[in-house]
Amino acid sequence: MKALVLEKIKQLSIRDFDIRETLGEYDVRIAIHTVGICGSDIHYYERGAIGQFVVREPMILGHEASGTIIELGKSVRNFRVGDRVCMEPGIPNPESRATRLGIYNLDPDVRFWATPPIHGCLRETVVHPAAFTFKLPDSVSFGEGAIVEPLAIGMHAAKKAEIRPGDVAVVTGAGTIGMVTTMAMLAGGCSKVIVSDVQDEKLAIVAKMGPVVPVNVLRENLKDAIARETDGWGADIALDASGNEKAIAGLVDLICPGGHIVLIGMPVGPVPMDIVAIQAKEARLDSIFRYAHVYPRALALMGSGKIDVKPLITDVFKFKDSIKAYEYAVHPKPTSVKVQIEMA
Amino acid sequence: MKALVLEKIKQLSIRDFDIRETLGEYDVRIAIHTVGICGSDIHYYERGAIGQFVVREPMILGHEASGTIIELGKSVRNFRVGDRVCMEPGIPNPESRATRLGIYNLDPDVRFWATPPIHGCLRETVVHPAAFTFKLPDSVSFGEGAIVEPLAIGMHAAKKAEIRPGDVAVVTGAGTIGMVTTMAMLAGGCSKVIVSDVQDEKLAIVAKMGPVVPVNVLRENLKDAIARETDGWGADIALDASGNEKAIAGLVDLICPGGHIVLIGMPVGPVPMDIVAIQAKEARLDSIFRYAHVYPRALALMGSGKIDVKPLITDVFKFKDSIKAYEYAVHPKPTSVKVQIEMA
Amino acid sequence: MKALVLEKIKQLSIRDFDIRETLGEYDVRIAIHTVGICGSDIHYYERGAIGQFVVREPMILGHEASGTIIELGKSVRNFRVGDRVCMEPGIPNPESRATRLGIYNLDPDVRFWATPPIHGCLRETVVHPAAFTFKLPDSVSFGEGAIVEPLAIGMHAAKKAEIRPGDVAVVTGAGTIGMVTTMAMLAGGCSKVIVSDVQDEKLAIVAKMGPVVPVNVLRENLKDAIARETDGWGADIALDASGNEKAIAGLVDLICPGGHIVLIGMPVGPVPMDIVAIQAKEARLDSIFRYAHVYPRALALMGSGKIDVKPLITDVFKFKDSIKAYEYAVHPKPTSVKVQIEMA
Amino acid sequence: MKALVLEKIKQLSIRDFDIRETLGEYDVRIAIHTVGICGSDIHYYERGAIGQFVVREPMILGHEASGTIIELGKSVRNFRVGDRVCMEPGIPNPESRATRLGIYNLDPDVRFWATPPIHGCLRETVVHPAAFTFKLPDSVSFGEGAIVEPLAIGMHAAKKAEIRPGDVAVVTGAGTIGMVTTMAMLAGGCSKVIVSDVQDEKLAIVAKMGPVVPVNVLRENLKDAIARETDGWGADIALDASGNEKAIAGLVDLICPGGHIVLIGMPVGPVPMDIVAIQAKEARLDSIFRYAHVYPRALALMGSGKIDVKPLITDVFKFKDSIKAYEYAVHPKPTSVKVQIEMA
Repeated sequence: MKALVLEKIKQLSIRDFDIRETLGEYDVRIAIHTVGICGSDIHYYERGAIGQFVVREPMILGHEASGTIIELGKSVRNFRVGDRVCMEPGIPNPESRATRLGIYNLDPDVRFWATPPIHGCLRETVVHPAAFTFKLPDSVSFGEGAIVEPLAIGMHAAKKAEIRPGDVAVVTGAGTIGMVTTMAMLAGGCSKVIVSDVQDEKLAIVAKMGPVVPVNVLRENLKDAIARETDGWGADIALDASGNEKAIAGLVDLICPGGHIVLIGMPVGPVPMDIVAIQAKEARLDSIFRYAHVYPRALALMGSGKIDVKPLITDVFKFKDSIKAYEYAVHPKPTSVKVQIEMA
Repeated sequence: MKALVLEKIKQLSIRDFDIRETLGEYDVRIAIHTVGICGSDIHYYERGAIGQFVVREPMILGHEASGTIIELGKSVRNFRVGDRVCMEPGIPNPESRATRLGIYNLDPDVRFWATPPIHGCLRETVVHPAAFTFKLPDSVSFGEGAIVEPLAIGMHAAKKAEIRPGDVAVVTGAGTIGMVTTMAMLAGGCSKVIVSDVQDEKLAIVAKMGPVVPVNVLRENLKDAIARETDGWGADIALDASGNEKAIAGLVDLICPGGHIVLIGMPVGPVPMDIVAIQAKEARLDSIFRYAHVYPRALALMGSGKIDVKPLITDVFKFKDSIKAYEYAVHPKPTSVKVQIEMA
Repeated sequence: MKALVLEKIKQLSIRDFDIRETLGEYDVRIAIHTVGICGSDIHYYERGAIGQFVVREPMILGHEASGTIIELGKSVRNFRVGDRVCMEPGIPNPESRATRLGIYNLDPDVRFWATPPIHGCLRETVVHPAAFTFKLPDSVSFGEGAIVEPLAIGMHAAKKAEIRPGDVAVVTGAGTIGMVTTMAMLAGGCSKVIVSDVQDEKLAIVAKMGPVVPVNVLRENLKDAIARETDGWGADIALDASGNEKAIAGLVDLICPGGHIVLIGMPVGPVPMDIVAIQAKEARLDSIFRYAHVYPRALALMGSGKIDVKPLITDVFKFKDSIKAYEYAVHPKPTSVKVQIEMA
Repeated sequence: MKALVLEKIKQLSIRDFDIRETLGEYDVRIAIHTVGICGSDIHYYERGAIGQFVVREPMILGHEASGTIIELGKSVRNFRVGDRVCMEPGIPNPESRATRLGIYNLDPDVRFWATPPIHGCLRETVVHPAAFTFKLPDSVSFGEGAIVEPLAIGMHAAKKAEIRPGDVAVVTGAGTIGMVTTMAMLAGGCSKVIVSDVQDEKLAIVAKMGPVVPVNVLRENLKDAIARETDGWGADIALDASGNEKAIAGLVDLICPGGHIVLIGMPVGPVPMDIVAIQAKEARLDSIFRYAHVYPRALALMGSGKIDVKPLITDVFKFKDSIKAYEYAVHPKPTSVKVQIEMA
């Protein structure tokens, strides 16, 4: 079938790729419609590796996908051919201890699309477990369906944040993950979210998502802004979506006594943390690794109109232009958020 | 000062009432602006008692109030004269074990407005602890400020519900408490709320509050409606705001495995509960008694626009017509929700 | 192979039973050593049915078992032939939504030993998933290993109870389940457990398990005893292990403000619950259905000496006397707790 | 009255000190019996300051105390003259937001004994709020009562750890705080605790406290020891009681997927934390600042025999020898744990 293949570093080709997948008893076969480009895709394209995961063979890219079911495994009951769906890109081993405990995202044997040596989904069809496939509400387009994957990260962070209704949150970083985290925190019960970044273009986008207070930290002190917005008490929850070491180390200064920190962004090295400052507030820190059990939650909020991801879809390319899409995604305009490729 | 006094059962008078209050170090004096009429006010008016609380002396009614600060105790730092505020009507004993644990609403010695022998706030001024007084956001009117008290019940229920973002909830009963609970559950992270009642007028009001599915149980089976809305899985959370015994006993049939029940409505007698059905789902039941720590949360959500209580203010009377207001509130139109009295 | 077969109501036979089990990739084959007799076994023996589960064909009894691994499926890595083990008797469907969420005990398709039409384990060998098989610590005998199953119920209740170190608990009912619950609550962090029953013989056994206050409710008021033991505050946690309707309805009177109730025992009909009393304490009620994820916890506590189940093993029969064992278990002495059958 | 006074750095005197305390309505007056010496006392003695807290005037030392009630405030109901008690040394402002929320230990205005400019309790009598005074069980001696203060730190950590029955914990550091943490974790539900240190004398003491696995990290790799004790899965909970930067940074390597870290020890500078490693396990980190609401829990566990602090009392001096006691406490034998001074 046709696929977008990363042949080696910085070399993509659109070509026929011989991949045959057997449909298991609990699987579905899906015709791919839309695939978003993620930072990790760009990373493999530009550098050929992320940590221990090295691209040694030609690999199909893409893991943010939606499509239409075209075939059902014989024990699949909750889908029909023609259903519009999106898919979780990571498939855990059902026999692992982590999976049995319900934390399947922590299973070390998880097979994740476009993480070598597993192929991605920028191709005509995929076979996928029905259990990790989710129906799109009628009001949700294929493009929005392909955004559920990055949104799931924000949703998982919002779930870990254990929001109490009316909490005030701060999100450091207004990139794609900062945006989906802001959306999830607002939909998840926060009264308002203070968002910091250094790019006004990103802050302008996130400011339209609801009761958001944008703070450009090049011009304004974030701690002061939070003090002003919380009568000096501090934010209930601080989430880092930047991966910036200084931002992470500074989270403790942003929260109230007994406040909560959630670590989403992945810094490149160890971060010097002020443990005594953390203790003085009895802060709780939670961290996330991908997500688990949140696709249905994201889709429910999108279907009922509480989350609207349409403003995130800024650039759409046809599959025949998918190499151009990747080239664009490497150096996008500051007003770009998500670049997507349509297969159909 | 002028006050609305319940002289005895079914006998109200607007008259001068000799009540002199000393301003303590941590107190504020407030000129009352708006006072809502609550079911308990009506109950005392019509029957003279609620359970063990019996009106034996003339008592000023009213506990849902907003106003303006006119005097500050000498150690009060976080207010100024002229601040627009609303007040929690229950003042706990700071020395009680429950208060120290942070569950001050469970302090048996709490002094609650218009709960005999404590006077209510349908009068010109009150002295109140600053700690239980809360500034209104600029965008929140006095009328809306006086609704924070009933909203607080919905907020407290929503906090107890431990909503995870995207949860589906069902609320049985679309009276005032059902409405504020629905608002709080939506603002607090639910993707949608299914609301049941027997009055179409109430369901029509609640249906406009967001992604709400109204169900008139005279015409439709609630369990079927929930199955349809949740692909047969059941609601994550079921809250009773009716106090109806049958509704309470039926909550377990509405939830999913591992689901959560929150008991708000107070039934008149014991309710036969199917313990084995509860166990088969490993249901968790939480219950609420008034509220604690939620006024700032309610105001934050109102201030940021995530909760809009204006549709609840259906009937406003001047203080000189406050007896008429009570007479109306006993037999309101089905489209009435909250009757308020303006002092100013 | 040889098995104890319930031919029909009140008719048992020890005989050859043709049961051939294929060893799957992730399974182990176990030679059974010890099998305890449970109330449900007795119920099927005496009445032929529990609720919807009706014995229509001859069925092998028994689900509380330990034994020795004699064969390994080809993908089993964490066991060796010769390992001494005990087994969870319920096997969930790995594809169910409940299983994926980690609440596999709530999977409606769970296959549970000796629950018709699934055969039990009172036979020479069984094939079982390695994931539901657990190694016995060296210090734990086969007899103790066969008690992990009922202990798991107490452990699951103790996990749901969310004990904070030093909590005071009350357990109503000192039968086998009351005993294992008391053990689990003490090992799980309670400072003491007040246990009520009407049988002095049972209370005498439970009183030896640690800091236990036995209360014979024929002679002493339980609420008074708890008031005395808690300076009038009430128990932090109340667990019913009796299934008695009056005991369940009375739990709310035993707890402190903000206290926790856990429902273990299964009453025969609906229980009239005083909802307003529950609300006045903002009580939380949890309920359990069997157990999940607790076998390793029970074994860890037994292995380290924090739980000692030996006093529960009061009556041991050889397999050739297993019919006699059942006859005894129907009318045991009051000092009997657990009757076990040794296969080897 | 007679008191032990820190005149200035390294200069102590036993002398009359003019301190007159009025007995408030909710206060009790206590004749001090036993006072332990804490690391912070030593720190003030040797250096005259801890962080921002500087000894500028002569200050009475001591905050770990027990004694006997000799006078009651007029509204005190739950005590009698003659009651044996111990006291929480920190008194929060009842009007603070943190106190009202139940997290009174985080109140910035807390007045803490022997933290300048507040005097300590190494003197004949103190006046103290009844709410922060706790009756000793009959079986608990004054010496043990004076150990409740350091034990409270371990108890608070154990409460934050949210132990599930049977959890395996690791505690880094076997000093006094490591010991009380180990005790609290064992009493609080752990099946066993692995404790690391570099001093064999300390490890020998802690090894006798129950199912403890001592690890001298000079001779054995801690991660390997934990792998061996947990079948390679990792500890459920890791608590640092050393304050050592390397130990804190290494906690993430000791826990299982989804594991919990609790930060007790206070390092002298920022600690480089591997955030990505934390995320890969979705670790949760909690931190503590002193304690709140745990004195009754500690006393309940001591009273019922689940915690025995007697082995911690290694050195007892009379008040007349209290300067000698401090000199000893600066350079104690490795087998010393807690040095106490008896006033009576």
